[in-house]
Amino acid sequence: MARLVSVLEIRHRDPATQARAGILRTVHGDVRTPGFVPLATKATVKGLEPRDVKALGYDIVLGNTFHLFLTPGHELIRHFGGLHRFMRWDGAIVTDSGGFQVFSMGHGTVADEIKGRAPSGSERAGRILEIAEEGVRFRSYLDGSEKFMGPETSMEIQAALGSDLALVFDECTPFNVSREYTQRSTERTHRWLDRCVAWHTQHAPDHQLIYGIVQGGVYEDLRVESAEAVAARGVDGIAIGGSLGDHKEQMYEVVGWATRAIDDDARPRHLLGIGDVDDLIRGVELGIDTFDCAMPTRLGRHGVAVVPDPERRWRVDITGKRWERSEEPLMEGCPCPTCEAGMTRGYLRYLVRNKELSGLRMLTIHNLAYLARLMADLRDAVATGTLAERAKALRDGAPPRTGLL
Amino acid sequence: MARLVSVLEIRHRDPATQARAGILRTVHGDVRTPGFVPLATKATVKGLEPRDVKALGYDIVLGNTFHLFLTPGHELIRHFGGLHRFMRWDGAIVTDSGGFQVFSMGHGTVADEIKGRAPSGSERAGRILEIAEEGVRFRSYLDGSEKFMGPETSMEIQAALGSDLALVFDECTPFNVSREYTQRSTERTHRWLDRCVAWHTQHAPDHQLIYGIVQGGVYEDLRVESAEAVAARGVDGIAIGGSLGDHKEQMYEVVGWATRAIDDDARPRHLLGIGDVDDLIRGVELGIDTFDCAMPTRLGRHGVAVVPDPERRWRVDITGKRWERSEEPLMEGCPCPTCEAGMTRGYLRYLVRNKELSGLRMLTIHNLAYLARLMADLRDAVATGTLAERAKALRDGAPPRTGLL
Repeated sequence: MARLVSVLEIRHRDPATQARAGILRTVHGDVRTPGFVPLATKATVKGLEPRDVKALGYDIVLGNTFHLFLTPGHELIRHFGGLHRFMRWDGAIVTDSGGFQVFSMGHGTVADEIKGRAPSGSERAGRILEIAEEGVRFRSYLDGSEKFMGPETSMEIQAALGSDLALVFDECTPFNVSREYTQRSTERTHRWLDRCVAWHTQHAPDHQLIYGIVQGGVYEDLRVESAEAVAARGVDGIAIGGSLGDHKEQMYEVVGWATRAIDDDARPRHLLGIGDVDDLIRGVELGIDTFDCAMPTRLGRHGVAVVPDPERRWRVDITGKRWERSEEPLMEGCPCPTCEAGMTRGYLRYLVRNKELSGLRMLTIHNLAYLARLMADLRDAVATGTLAERAKALRDGAPPRTGLL
Repeated sequence: MARLVSVLEIRHRDPATQARAGILRTVHGDVRTPGFVPLATKATVKGLEPRDVKALGYDIVLGNTFHLFLTPGHELIRHFGGLHRFMRWDGAIVTDSGGFQVFSMGHGTVADEIKGRAPSGSERAGRILEIAEEGVRFRSYLDGSEKFMGPETSMEIQAALGSDLALVFDECTPFNVSREYTQRSTERTHRWLDRCVAWHTQHAPDHQLIYGIVQGGVYEDLRVESAEAVAARGVDGIAIGGSLGDHKEQMYEVVGWATRAIDDDARPRHLLGIGDVDDLIRGVELGIDTFDCAMPTRLGRHGVAVVPDPERRWRVDITGKRWERSEEPLMEGCPCPTCEAGMTRGYLRYLVRNKELSGLRMLTIHNLAYLARLMADLRDAVATGTLAERAKALRDGAPPRTGLL
């Protein structure tokens, strides 16, 4: 349901780029923007308690409609009073619509291309039975039972979850499809957008804002058309989804088409599934307010730490033999609880290789702490008119400054 | 190496039982006794960081010689400056000798009987090749390679680990063996004890104390003989191990034989592998100073919470269907971080059933917090001359008092 009040309060602008910094207001507190949103896909940030997420400086997490629909089910979460109360997180929550996950089952390559990885076993185990105008019939990866999700289903689930920000149900097209397929798919996404907005207007909880999703693949005219179509609807915020191309420069170009087409101060812009350090910096310059990504948490669980090293995509895989005897911390001078406690790469390597939960947790904490500091650094840079220098320094491998809010 | 100074400072005694309360001094800080020792088997309390363990009120953890020998190896841990520095735990550490684990591979029923469970897959996958006077040859459960552990090996590993309290290498006999087998085995354990003490006297780090282990199965004369034999050696502390019988009353009887035979103020007594609430209460009455057990951490990872319910062994399994919609906390009025955060049985059930790390962690925290409070309650009761009433109340299902040190 379109709100008549602005939910985004822009406080600062960078004169040279589209970057902006401010506050996104929700009934579960303010979200500092630009900000990163950690994944709580299945009603928990994996390995962390809500108090940990809070202590790392996060205002908001992302729950997943598709996964929570399959287990424990939105009716159960409704029984507990919604997702905030179920998972005891009193900050803001955005829920992904489930579109990405549903379509990933059909063409696993969406996941590959957009997230830069192979689809997980669980997602692949499910399977699409039919994609129709009404919605998508599929088999649950949990028990093989037949399920249906369409625009109204997704919104109904999100209403039961009671998230602060709901995303519309969209068809997420992979990279390797034709312009014609992308166009037809984008048009269907727009028809689904109307149905989502209609359902939301009538039934959603008062506090829940709705975000439209811009599709259109890597085609400029389709992206612009989609951005305008979404902006024309009375949505509260706008997310950018789907295939953003097969390399970073193309991704930035595609995102730029969309953000320039939705030149809008009142509505927050969210970039779906992007979280590499350089992509976050560029995303902020392109006018993105919030980002979500599995990267810091998923990589953490696989022994990859985020470090200020642009040569290696800001990553170090500490599971390699070369770190066996390393007494180095994940990052020199890092103020995160893991590095502050003096945890060495050698010890963390041992823990991760032995699948010790504490190791997965400590790497997750380090990675999320890094991204929290990065976003605080970028927010401060926008506020103080120093984005150009800070962005350059960060791109060159400067560690994010500490102690910023 | 026998120390000429007392390591145990007994400050209070219960007039009606053998219970005593005080301080066990180590170079890594004081351990309040009677106290529970959480397992950090593989150089981490599973799912927890050292700061968590500290915050729960623990002074000491237990590392395992057998597991750390197989991975990452004691030489690697020595490279890091010992186990304290490797795992960044600055409190005290006791290391189990590896005897229990080595012999569990041969007769898995030791584990069954003593720990009340089936041996884990990993332990079962290894296998004993030969038990001889020299020691035990076995296959690693990790890579099938042939390994050897004898008294000197165990002490050498523990010296490299640099634990504050080292346990001697013993043969751990199962319940279902004859008196003759038990006797021969106990005699070998005593010969191994001499070799351990000899090695330790010459090579162990100065700060490391050595504990002998009383064996003798369920036979009074063998237990008493073993207790006296161990006490006669110049060990710093005495642990009670092996088969304690097939029911609780027998266990208490066996422990009582041993503690009465080592009526000794200077030396701490440790009861190996025991951690049920009623057993801890009785153990304190029998004069035990420290206990270790996998129960609170292992059960926590399987969805079992410790609660003040004597009818159900102080346990509730929250994975059952009946808890699906439960908004109850694990325990009403519990001050642990999990219950304080308002986590419901329904939510924790969902997390544990979905193998979410945060669920395993939050149950582990609750269970360890419960046992920390129980031991603080018992210490206070001994100090204030109220053990009889408190023990009765706790046995009847009173929750441990909070706010005690």
